[in-house]
Amino acid sequence: MAITVVGSVAFDTVETPAGRYERQLAGAATYFSLASSFFTDVRVIAVVGEDFGPEQEAVFKARNIDTTGIERASGKSFFWEGSYLENLNEAKTHNTELNVFATFNPQIPDSYRDSEFLFLANIDPVLQRRVREQMPDVKLVAGDTMNYWIKDHKPALLEMLKGLDMLLINDTEARMLAGNNNLLQAARGVIAMGPHTLIVKHGEYGATAFFSEKSFAVETVPHPFRAPALPLEEVVDPTGAGDSFAGGFFGYLASQGEMTPAVFRRAMFYGSVMGSYACERFGTERLQQLTREEIDKRFLIFRELTHLD
Amino acid sequence: MAITVVGSVAFDTVETPAGRYERQLAGAATYFSLASSFFTDVRVIAVVGEDFGPEQEAVFKARNIDTTGIERASGKSFFWEGSYLENLNEAKTHNTELNVFATFNPQIPDSYRDSEFLFLANIDPVLQRRVREQMPDVKLVAGDTMNYWIKDHKPALLEMLKGLDMLLINDTEARMLAGNNNLLQAARGVIAMGPHTLIVKHGEYGATAFFSEKSFAVETVPHPFRAPALPLEEVVDPTGAGDSFAGGFFGYLASQGEMTPAVFRRAMFYGSVMGSYACERFGTERLQQLTREEIDKRFLIFRELTHLD
Repeated sequence: MAITVVGSVAFDTVETPAGRYERQLAGAATYFSLASSFFTDVRVIAVVGEDFGPEQEAVFKARNIDTTGIERASGKSFFWEGSYLENLNEAKTHNTELNVFATFNPQIPDSYRDSEFLFLANIDPVLQRRVREQMPDVKLVAGDTMNYWIKDHKPALLEMLKGLDMLLINDTEARMLAGNNNLLQAARGVIAMGPHTLIVKHGEYGATAFFSEKSFAVETVPHPFRAPALPLEEVVDPTGAGDSFAGGFFGYLASQGEMTPAVFRRAMFYGSVMGSYACERFGTERLQQLTREEIDKRFLIFRELTHLD
Repeated sequence: MAITVVGSVAFDTVETPAGRYERQLAGAATYFSLASSFFTDVRVIAVVGEDFGPEQEAVFKARNIDTTGIERASGKSFFWEGSYLENLNEAKTHNTELNVFATFNPQIPDSYRDSEFLFLANIDPVLQRRVREQMPDVKLVAGDTMNYWIKDHKPALLEMLKGLDMLLINDTEARMLAGNNNLLQAARGVIAMGPHTLIVKHGEYGATAFFSEKSFAVETVPHPFRAPALPLEEVVDPTGAGDSFAGGFFGYLASQGEMTPAVFRRAMFYGSVMGSYACERFGTERLQQLTREEIDKRFLIFRELTHLD
């Protein structure tokens, strides 16, 4: 089943202990769509500026990602500059320029309308909601957000959350959103805001899913489920790891005919696999060069990483 | 097979968001021996002062722990005061009084000499080494240490590490000991110092084991193995969780006839189970009241927490 994703297609300047790159193709929707494209058909909604040319377009095309919904506007694309010099787990933002995103009014191409899966990557919750409302018939909606929207745009965020089936955020965001430092209690608080399932991303420690009675068509609510992360020889660039996790997770879900606890668990592992690959090179480089065979090989390593038998 | 453990038997004053207690029985060897006593015979080597009376002795006796090696000295027992008010993952130390531990010269009772497993809980590495040298015939030696010894007693610590098969420390300690922020590289560095296997404890994110060619009698060195931790409804008191992890882990290992990757993995899960129980009440309270049935029940929840099938 096809996924439509709305989010940023952007340019990043990033410095990590391994090096630095300037104005390379990035953005949550880019990482998400590259990662999910290994599992299913992916369609992007975003806005880019005049700096988005054939070279950037080709990155999507090479993975068969539908770019009909990427609007070209005059001006520059969204730009982010950050570094991970002291802490590989948390970016330090040096500069954010919304540019063409400041006046973005997302439109859904007709050819996207039969998408059964919708992912609202981290952008203004007002835009996320607008896209959600234009696609009332999707089967499953998941989304992401960040501390900025939680702190300064909470009413809009809470409205958006009501339209989600699943939310994927990190530890700090989950605790901040629920106003509760205990993760289990915070998860319950977030689930009461709308999404029936919450995935909390722990960076190098993996991710944990929290369920409710609406998560699956099963009688008992499953215990939380934790997917590990792989200890890596070198974390070259953690940018986009969370979006790649989301892409692997949601892409695998969309590729399966049914939503069972077992399918969900495998999806979490595929999310971790894609997140681990994203960190191995700068920007989207590793995701661009990846093969499905490599993905499935690493899936088996992840299984071994945490299985008793 | 019986375990001998050397370490602190102490009194703690602790404040957590859930409350406060004054001068209660604690110490690494206490938590370790309570946790491991559910799996095998346990014998303690420590020194206590005149404040250690029948009430404290009874806690060990109730779990059939051999206290022959607990020396009574004049003066007060080791005392620690700390709090977890801002961060449940890291204690803030307010006061440490070595007291009788300042002049401790550990003696091995003859009745302990047939112990096949030895655990050197976190104390002065000089003392750890002295005990290690007095028990040259043990089958497996594991130990713990902390930032204080890494920073200010490194030569003695490095000597001690040469006598270990396994080291159990936390993330910060592993990175500090190896002088490397990448966990995989740090693990390799620590393994080069002596122990053939390293377990890195991640607090609420579980623990990861790193192996070398000497870890098992198998041809290929296994990938790292990660045991999860259980998201808890309330973390009442994290004191002793790491020592309880070590006790569950080492106790289960000692209870098994052989050391295979599968046995090791189950031992890691039992470690996580004991660590999770330790946090549920103040001090050693929960470990004192626990049953083996409850342990095995939670083991199954841990399995479900991270298994695909």
